[in-house]
Amino acid sequence: MRAKDFRLEVVATDSLARSARISTPHGEIETPTFMPVATFGAVRGISAEELAGAGAQILLSNTYHLHERPGEQTIEALGGLHGFTGWSGPWLTDSGGFQVTSLSDRAKIDEAGVTFTSPLDGRRRTLTPESTIQIQEVLGSDIAMVLDECIPIAEQSPDSENRENHENKESRTDPGELERAMQRTLRWAERAQKARRRESQAVFAIVQGGASESLRRWSAEATAELDFDGYAHGGLGLGESREERRAAVEIANQSLPVDRPRYLMGLGRPIDLMDGIAAGVDLFDCVVPTRNGRHGLLFTSQGVLSLRNAQFERDDGPIDPECDCPACRNHSRGYLRHLIRSGETLGPRFTALHNLTYYLNLLTRARRAIENGRFAALHAEIEAIADRRI
Amino acid sequence: MRAKDFRLEVVATDSLARSARISTPHGEIETPTFMPVATFGAVRGISAEELAGAGAQILLSNTYHLHERPGEQTIEALGGLHGFTGWSGPWLTDSGGFQVTSLSDRAKIDEAGVTFTSPLDGRRRTLTPESTIQIQEVLGSDIAMVLDECIPIAEQSPDSENRENHENKESRTDPGELERAMQRTLRWAERAQKARRRESQAVFAIVQGGASESLRRWSAEATAELDFDGYAHGGLGLGESREERRAAVEIANQSLPVDRPRYLMGLGRPIDLMDGIAAGVDLFDCVVPTRNGRHGLLFTSQGVLSLRNAQFERDDGPIDPECDCPACRNHSRGYLRHLIRSGETLGPRFTALHNLTYYLNLLTRARRAIENGRFAALHAEIEAIADRRI
Repeated sequence: MRAKDFRLEVVATDSLARSARISTPHGEIETPTFMPVATFGAVRGISAEELAGAGAQILLSNTYHLHERPGEQTIEALGGLHGFTGWSGPWLTDSGGFQVTSLSDRAKIDEAGVTFTSPLDGRRRTLTPESTIQIQEVLGSDIAMVLDECIPIAEQSPDSENRENHENKESRTDPGELERAMQRTLRWAERAQKARRRESQAVFAIVQGGASESLRRWSAEATAELDFDGYAHGGLGLGESREERRAAVEIANQSLPVDRPRYLMGLGRPIDLMDGIAAGVDLFDCVVPTRNGRHGLLFTSQGVLSLRNAQFERDDGPIDPECDCPACRNHSRGYLRHLIRSGETLGPRFTALHNLTYYLNLLTRARRAIENGRFAALHAEIEAIADRRI
Repeated sequence: MRAKDFRLEVVATDSLARSARISTPHGEIETPTFMPVATFGAVRGISAEELAGAGAQILLSNTYHLHERPGEQTIEALGGLHGFTGWSGPWLTDSGGFQVTSLSDRAKIDEAGVTFTSPLDGRRRTLTPESTIQIQEVLGSDIAMVLDECIPIAEQSPDSENRENHENKESRTDPGELERAMQRTLRWAERAQKARRRESQAVFAIVQGGASESLRRWSAEATAELDFDGYAHGGLGLGESREERRAAVEIANQSLPVDRPRYLMGLGRPIDLMDGIAAGVDLFDCVVPTRNGRHGLLFTSQGVLSLRNAQFERDDGPIDPECDCPACRNHSRGYLRHLIRSGETLGPRFTALHNLTYYLNLLTRARRAIENGRFAALHAEIEAIADRRI
């Protein structure tokens, strides 16, 4: 089954990078783009109006969180995700599988699905390939994700929240284990494809296979045969090197149909986005811009700035002189630093919105660069400031 | 000494109620009005643009908090309160005395001033009538408050955060104690008047005297002789009855010059504002609308609504159909309830802004009612819904 009123049209290509237009029942999306994360149906502290002003075209929400609270039936009664939240543009919902396994230390995965203990009422619940599609159909998102089994490529260091690279050859996951999870993900995708009923909702399947090029190719080819509306690269940012990631995405993309969106899940930093685009990715999501923003770690045209540093105490300049977001237009680094240090929620609201604006502006530049055949230059520019601290 | 460029002009009177226009170096204020509380130089989660949109004309900030963090020198370096915060309209700063004595359990008050232990660095500091004026001059507010000694009229019940009425005849403060604090407040006012240097800053003195009509009259007469730019009613909402409060304010106002603003400090609920206006008050401040708003206790044209109640789970209507704030224009009770219950900061941001909009709209109605000689009807309308729960 394929969704109605959902299609991708390639606008321009520049080497493997591409700009495209995705049509959905709730409007068009120009790609490559970034999806701000609205876990509970809201981006922390930021209104739908502000997200639109920053250039957001599609938001991501977490099925597991919404299922627990307020429950998909309540959301349906209040007009589905669009009516409920007031964001009337496209929505993507994840499957909930990643959240369940990362939030619950007693999650059990078997062929049926994922069984976990709800932190809300302590009861055991099971999420299956079928039930996650059904929940997402009730939520009414434009794009639903299939349940997948996502295992780390290497053991993560405890502070790897941002899913940055942690090349750790010693603690690498057994290749047999990665293949087993990839095969199960494939079987679950098949079950999800059979379970879906809603024609107005696209469903994306997920390519797995760790950092192995042969597993990634195999996974992409077999998943592509199931004829989904779009495809995601899963299980990355979890221990592989930057070069391994590039290769994994590039090889899978060779086996995925050109006319379907490609989504790199959960990554990341500006340079990760540029790397992904260079490998042919259309969609991104990550908590990095909003979470880092709330903590005062800000992306700028000159590099990364940590607003808590004492050097900014009496700095009357904007976060980024090249940015046009409300924080940069109206407030100084000194004032925003004070708000964050004082626990004033206006601070994180402004700084998270700044980071999102930076990301969304960067992706607009990426689209224009691809259309002008100059993406490599933009990629190099971002690489040059990736580790630069102001 | 009197401030330059600061004056009050009465526009209309209706019995004791009055509407007026206060000119300040940073713009005019139409009174009666309510001053949203921006403790650290920001109203929790709400931007200056949104405050202006809601009808705010003047903000209040807390000298003690700003003195501790980021310090008045930093604020001065970043353009004073106006440049620092981006709120370019008038600012009122309190003296810090009330905060110091209510936040520190080891505050010591003597003739010199208030000595307290800083929660930031554990050091002992002293706030004197002179130093609080000096700090406020550096902050650059349009209206500074003198240091006063504020003692409760009766012992407060532990949940009396909102400074509502707690008529408790048994635990009443000794009248001699109230007179002593009133006399000291008067001596401190005299010292503040001598210490001030900044011509562009108005200074308000504070009438004390508990619930005693004779002490209030005495305090008002003696304070008025010191020729301040405005006068506040202090020490109310701390144990007296509603009728005692009305009498205390009314009697003091008889002794205060007609051409100076009158400010009822720290009160309160909509009905407290109406009572104050009926007794001739021009300015109000209180954390009730913002704090209650953040907790989902919302003021509406039909009464008070507690958004956490289960009855609103699937309610697709606005908080108040008669309100034009961003929350009421764009979101349902069901969605806002979900945000508050999920700890999403977008919820408190919207609900606090709703309450502020309700207050500021109510005060616009009060001004129009006074100008049309119909304030008593508005007062009765608000009294009728004061205790009504939706």
